Amino acid sequence: MSESVLIVGAGNGLSASFARLCHSNGMRVMLAARNIDKLAALAKETDASVVACDASDPGDVERMFVNADESIGTPDIVVYNPSTSARGPVSEIDKNAVRDALLITCYGGFLVVQEAAKRMLARGTGSLLLTGASASVKGFANSSSFAMGKFGLRGLAQSSARELAPRGIHVAHFVIDGVIRCQGSDGGNDGKLDPDAIAQSYLDIHRQHRSAWTWEAELRPWVENF
Amino acid sequence: MSESVLIVGAGNGLSASFARLCHSNGMRVMLAARNIDKLAALAKETDASVVACDASDPGDVERMFVNADESIGTPDIVVYNPSTSARGPVSEIDKNAVRDALLITCYGGFLVVQEAAKRMLARGTGSLLLTGASASVKGFANSSSFAMGKFGLRGLAQSSARELAPRGIHVAHFVIDGVIRCQGSDGGNDGKLDPDAIAQSYLDIHRQHRSAWTWEAELRPWVENF
Amino acid sequence: MSESVLIVGAGNGLSASFARLCHSNGMRVMLAARNIDKLAALAKETDASVVACDASDPGDVERMFVNADESIGTPDIVVYNPSTSARGPVSEIDKNAVRDALLITCYGGFLVVQEAAKRMLARGTGSLLLTGASASVKGFANSSSFAMGKFGLRGLAQSSARELAPRGIHVAHFVIDGVIRCQGSDGGNDGKLDPDAIAQSYLDIHRQHRSAWTWEAELRPWVENF
Amino acid sequence: MSESVLIVGAGNGLSASFARLCHSNGMRVMLAARNIDKLAALAKETDASVVACDASDPGDVERMFVNADESIGTPDIVVYNPSTSARGPVSEIDKNAVRDALLITCYGGFLVVQEAAKRMLARGTGSLLLTGASASVKGFANSSSFAMGKFGLRGLAQSSARELAPRGIHVAHFVIDGVIRCQGSDGGNDGKLDPDAIAQSYLDIHRQHRSAWTWEAELRPWVENF
Repeated sequence: MSESVLIVGAGNGLSASFARLCHSNGMRVMLAARNIDKLAALAKETDASVVACDASDPGDVERMFVNADESIGTPDIVVYNPSTSARGPVSEIDKNAVRDALLITCYGGFLVVQEAAKRMLARGTGSLLLTGASASVKGFANSSSFAMGKFGLRGLAQSSARELAPRGIHVAHFVIDGVIRCQGSDGGNDGKLDPDAIAQSYLDIHRQHRSAWTWEAELRPWVENF
Repeated sequence: MSESVLIVGAGNGLSASFARLCHSNGMRVMLAARNIDKLAALAKETDASVVACDASDPGDVERMFVNADESIGTPDIVVYNPSTSARGPVSEIDKNAVRDALLITCYGGFLVVQEAAKRMLARGTGSLLLTGASASVKGFANSSSFAMGKFGLRGLAQSSARELAPRGIHVAHFVIDGVIRCQGSDGGNDGKLDPDAIAQSYLDIHRQHRSAWTWEAELRPWVENF
Repeated sequence: MSESVLIVGAGNGLSASFARLCHSNGMRVMLAARNIDKLAALAKETDASVVACDASDPGDVERMFVNADESIGTPDIVVYNPSTSARGPVSEIDKNAVRDALLITCYGGFLVVQEAAKRMLARGTGSLLLTGASASVKGFANSSSFAMGKFGLRGLAQSSARELAPRGIHVAHFVIDGVIRCQGSDGGNDGKLDPDAIAQSYLDIHRQHRSAWTWEAELRPWVENF
Repeated sequence: MSESVLIVGAGNGLSASFARLCHSNGMRVMLAARNIDKLAALAKETDASVVACDASDPGDVERMFVNADESIGTPDIVVYNPSTSARGPVSEIDKNAVRDALLITCYGGFLVVQEAAKRMLARGTGSLLLTGASASVKGFANSSSFAMGKFGLRGLAQSSARELAPRGIHVAHFVIDGVIRCQGSDGGNDGKLDPDAIAQSYLDIHRQHRSAWTWEAELRPWVENF
């Protein structure tokens, strides 16, 4: 029986690379996004199911997992990517946009972890891979809402790792510390992260033996200041 | 002209100790809480104004600051204490309780920082003191919602510190790493944090010269494992 | 009976400010440095004993504490400041200079902590205040030997804090994240750390109640990028 | 032309697993240890050169690299494993043992990084893989010398990563957070780290594309408290 993967927040970039890598490794793939219009080509290329889902909506997330139950079964891997933010001075940014950012970036991560954990715990295995950013570990000026969401998601990841690892679920958080290059561009001499390279590290960590799990890894271009 | 302090999330413990300490240092005091019934004695003792405020409600927070404008002026110090959490396995905790926890613990912090920053930036000085916990820097099992909220608040604090410090506003985050002892109890040979001792450190950090500011300090009992 | 302080690595800047602050608070002061010629004026001003000591030499450190036993008694506070480094590319810096840097910055800290701990444990109280730098928590390019020494000193501080705090000894590590301004200069609008301000925070942390101790605090100018 | 690897501090466990993994991937292998008597079987199994080296001795380290120049060429991978410590209360441990621990665990790492960097910079590629421990990021009671050495090595790794990454050298630090199981034992239901699993993660990180490098990864058993 082949493995399966659910990618929440699918689009271009990392999620597309990871979908292709999983597909080429024989996994069944499911793609979820708020707007699924853009996913047709990727879904075709990776033989993927597609489901529309606002990750900050509890009902949507529950329906997405019921849909997964039917189409790919309990996923072996669930990836959580979505984030938004309201950029600008903390004294000026829109209150509603900050709230939405927190709900999508962090609360949505919880909703997905919860539904995935229910299923993975019943089976006793699975990997939950949460996508962070530089802002997960460093709060930058004029970026408070992004820091709130990404720090919060990291807290979820660390708490869930402590809780779920001893029950067989591998939770890993990735600090993507740089700009991901667009598919087809040259990445400026590798000064931007190649999404295929990120995807390979996601798969490497999924493949780790349970006696030697990583809960967090940062990834950055060789020339990136940090 | 004496200094003034607004304490959001006032009750017993740290907030009461800090109110008393500020009052005894000649500051005007304003106390805010969702439920203000419990604040009568403390308000009387510290000559404080009292205002009801759900810190996760934008309108409430705006009204609280308008109220402060009239009663104590732009505060020299604003303290943010509120938090809630939904304790239990990440696969079982109530989705709505998690959402509320995130909004009160983290989003409420943003609302208060925003309104305070608007006023403090106009004056060019002020201290924003945000109360964290062990869960601000370590995500414990069965405590995912608390980790989400407290990590997120720390991200807000760090981002705001980087943004506001060069404009004269001192943002500091406190990692309270232990149990705060109840007023009047003996603290088990100082095995729990004395709220008066915490309050002194809050004031010490407010009093720091701007050439040597601390953005984060942890406080724990001498006998606490960490 | 008044308190006493031993400042290892005394010179200008922070150590001089702290000596003056302790003296003005009624403490007996002892100053130690490799080269004590420069200490005459400060010693006179603070009624201090002076002792020559190469902090990386076990015999010197033992003799310094024997000297302290006789002149100021077991110190209530011991400060450790010394550091050296070999600046330059890791592929080019002088091997002997790196070794010396590690021995002075880190091993000397151990020697001082050990002798101080022996005495403080017998009494059951005392503060060990270790001076770190930006390099204590961030390893910069072309600064490997400084990172090695200061990271190592921080490891000593954290381990000693965990070990000695439950026995009554307060170990605190200070991350001085910026340039300390020279005595008498204006500090460029407080863009450099005022050594008197740092000294005040050292004393504040010494004065903390044992139910709410800080083991680490960073200090930086309001305008410093971090 | 096949890749080559130099493993400093070779013995059983991780180093043996990594030697085998590299050999099975077609690399030329060189093994270095203070005592090489124990390496005969592993050397035969992996067609490896063997060299005696006290990693804390500058002359020994230089000779080791000259030896490597002749036998395996400039290594594509250099691994640094050695560490010692003096376990016990900070007030009681032997001063000389602490000094030796610092020199072997940390200074030896510098000596090896320096000689490796000289050669790798000339070529423009290479991986420097430094082995840390729980004590690299957490200073435990009664373990001050181990914390000093391992924190210091981490400082070296981080500084070197910032300095060398933009010149093509991948520096990575591994926090081995648990006990490595002995070859042939069952690891208690994977409660100890399988050295083959660690070795795989070392190789995965060596294989990362330079647009997405990890500078630090922790590895721990699924059931390990952290």
